[in-house]
Amino acid sequence: MENGFHKKPRWDTRASEASLRTINPIRGIVDGMKLEPNPDKDIIALSIGDPTKFGNLDPSEDVVDAVNVSLKSGKSNGYSPSVGFVDARAAVAKKYSHPDAPLTSEDVILTCGCSGALDLAIGVLADAGQNILVPRPGFALYATLAGSYDIEYRFYELMPCKSWEVDLENLESQIDEKTACIIVNNPSNPCGSVFSKEHIQDIIKIASKHHLPIVSDEVYADMVFSGSTFYSVASLASNVPVLTCGGLAKRYLAPGWRLGWILIHDPVGAFEEEVRLGLFRLSTKILGPCTLIQSALPAILEKTSNSFHENTMDILKTNAEICFKFLDATPGLKPIMPKGSMYIMCGIEIDKFHGFMDDMEFVQCLMSEESVFCLPGKCFEYPNYFRVVLCVPEEKTSEACKRIKEFCTRHYRGGLINTVEET
Amino acid sequence: MENGFHKKPRWDTRASEASLRTINPIRGIVDGMKLEPNPDKDIIALSIGDPTKFGNLDPSEDVVDAVNVSLKSGKSNGYSPSVGFVDARAAVAKKYSHPDAPLTSEDVILTCGCSGALDLAIGVLADAGQNILVPRPGFALYATLAGSYDIEYRFYELMPCKSWEVDLENLESQIDEKTACIIVNNPSNPCGSVFSKEHIQDIIKIASKHHLPIVSDEVYADMVFSGSTFYSVASLASNVPVLTCGGLAKRYLAPGWRLGWILIHDPVGAFEEEVRLGLFRLSTKILGPCTLIQSALPAILEKTSNSFHENTMDILKTNAEICFKFLDATPGLKPIMPKGSMYIMCGIEIDKFHGFMDDMEFVQCLMSEESVFCLPGKCFEYPNYFRVVLCVPEEKTSEACKRIKEFCTRHYRGGLINTVEET
Ligand SMILES: Cc1ncc(COP(=O)(O)O)c(C=O)c1O
Ligand SMILES: Cc1ncc(COP(=O)(O)O)c(C=O)c1O
Repeated sequence: MENGFHKKPRWDTRASEASLRTINPIRGIVDGMKLEPNPDKDIIALSIGDPTKFGNLDPSEDVVDAVNVSLKSGKSNGYSPSVGFVDARAAVAKKYSHPDAPLTSEDVILTCGCSGALDLAIGVLADAGQNILVPRPGFALYATLAGSYDIEYRFYELMPCKSWEVDLENLESQIDEKTACIIVNNPSNPCGSVFSKEHIQDIIKIASKHHLPIVSDEVYADMVFSGSTFYSVASLASNVPVLTCGGLAKRYLAPGWRLGWILIHDPVGAFEEEVRLGLFRLSTKILGPCTLIQSALPAILEKTSNSFHENTMDILKTNAEICFKFLDATPGLKPIMPKGSMYIMCGIEIDKFHGFMDDMEFVQCLMSEESVFCLPGKCFEYPNYFRVVLCVPEEKTSEACKRIKEFCTRHYRGGLINTVEET
Repeated sequence: MENGFHKKPRWDTRASEASLRTINPIRGIVDGMKLEPNPDKDIIALSIGDPTKFGNLDPSEDVVDAVNVSLKSGKSNGYSPSVGFVDARAAVAKKYSHPDAPLTSEDVILTCGCSGALDLAIGVLADAGQNILVPRPGFALYATLAGSYDIEYRFYELMPCKSWEVDLENLESQIDEKTACIIVNNPSNPCGSVFSKEHIQDIIKIASKHHLPIVSDEVYADMVFSGSTFYSVASLASNVPVLTCGGLAKRYLAPGWRLGWILIHDPVGAFEEEVRLGLFRLSTKILGPCTLIQSALPAILEKTSNSFHENTMDILKTNAEICFKFLDATPGLKPIMPKGSMYIMCGIEIDKFHGFMDDMEFVQCLMSEESVFCLPGKCFEYPNYFRVVLCVPEEKTSEACKRIKEFCTRHYRGGLINTVEET
């Protein structure tokens, strides 16, 4: 107790700065919007990145059975090691091993969702005052986590005209001596892009040149439409350490189960001395994901059939094609055909419309007139775009696109001859 | 990019200081011990605070059924709000409401285990450079979390001679203008103590006087032996804000499920302005515990019978009595009879023994001679004690105590006439 210290005179309990800095920009943006649907039209929400939301995409029966076995066994109720059960880690290692990026159970840490994996990966690589490089447009959680830890986040640009490839020059120009890592997201939320092998190699080259580890958010790993190929960053990174973040949320259609992982790829031994230890230590804060899911993981990863995944991707691709066709034929919109994940981004030629100043106003007006809700590009730091989720049942997707088309046609400058409504 | 900046010349990837500071002292202590069992005797581990470890304490059938319903419904696979499903939060609110500390779903945040609750509670109340007051002896995670956030932790003393009540003068003397909160743990790990109403009121008085919120770790809530009564801190804190941390781990015998909660008790409105917001924001980092358990929570909390809980407590109490009887009759040991939780602490009159300098050497020697393992007091910052877990089946508990008694008798100074082994 210091000399002259007196008790606080009143209740002025403050929240920590760290907690107040933990801001998910999407929430603030959406909460700040005036979202009133048209009472005459049922709402279609194309905004939610939860594939299970609409009842058309559920986890496979094999997966549900596996969890049931784990529940019924009575053997999965106790604590796991903080990094996860070794069998579950071994199953992830086996599934995601690549000849050029082999994994053992020692290279896997189980986490509470891919969010938990990103939390650990960013938390272990960067300290307050350092910076991390994140894609724009990109998933908001990177900024939320960085903010929480007082890590600066610097955007590097993705190029819509090049199927959302990274602007490599721009990426490299962001690097300075305080840069701790590069975050890559492939396949991408919100873009739906899937990087080519060559493009990933180009990114790796920059990381290698600057000796920067990569955090590769691959929660949409393997979720590519027929005709595209997914390459994990680690499989191409022969001289760069990579922390790959993944999980069951999207491909296995079980986001609520909160089962994620970090895969440690360390071809140059950069993580030996400290990073593995740091990851282990961070894992002791929460003690791992739900053991019922952990125990089921070997069966989940082994037994889910290819046809299950193919079926999911067919649904997503069909919706992508519907959206693209409609939106591409809509005056003032510039959709970019995705190659994977669950989203399509669509540009708005905002100056060609009456009545909206930006994507925010566009999206609000679309809601109030057509009861269709999409996230504005602002949620991904990318104004004058909106993101459409591709998990919504086909009829609803079509209906929503039809409404978007009518809406745009109505508000398009000089497009007045098209305003006769079809309803 | 700063002028004159050049790329890093080599791989020197450091882990963040924050991650390296996230240290669970128990692990370091146990890893550093020479633990070699006597090959002629089977190992009995009285060290693990996992009630499901030995197969004698399992979640109730009703609870397992509830999770099964949630799994089979197919309706609990999607994301929950980051603070948890409102039904699950309402169920927790209903269960833990007290006439003097009423709760609504708005006052409940679901977390990944009680560990996750403590993470949020400490994280929201204290920033780097502040301090929090934690009990000695006490649960190691408080220090782990504080270390992670660069928060200073200051011990206040519990008094073995007074059934582990808080030394109130000592507690108050630790407070200064950088103190952010007081952490109370009742019933206690490792002590097994259960505070009286009056004692809790005394602690609250100090918190009130200094306008310090309390974080009350009540993961062992209601786990008291017949004859004792549990009072939640919040129910007695009419003028002090309290964040109560709890969960399913111990009382519902499902630690691996990682379902915990924070209960917000704010009779003075101290948390309105910032702390609730801060808690919400922190929750967005991980997005809540496993939804299968969340959905089952209303049934779990409503349907688990009193007799289920009574049965658990009877087992624990029987073991407590066995341990106390044996250890109390052992030369050189001073067990303190617990009133609840799952542990008994036992003092070692170390200078009355040959061959051990401290609790560490005592525990190692006990392992090498008797294949019995207990955590040394050092794990709880309390030298010359050891902690015995009371969840081990009765026969094993008896056998372990018998071995401890023989061991102590053998090593007791002047107790040489007792060294004839009975085996
Ligand atoms: C790119 C990206 N990464 C990570 C996540 C988080 O995944 P999880 O639900 O497993 O935490 C999401 C969820 O939408 C995402 O889109
Ligand atoms: C006092 C105390 N608090 C919190 C916890 C953590 O509980 P959970 O397993 O729900 O994270 C424990 C676990 O042993 C404990 O003893």
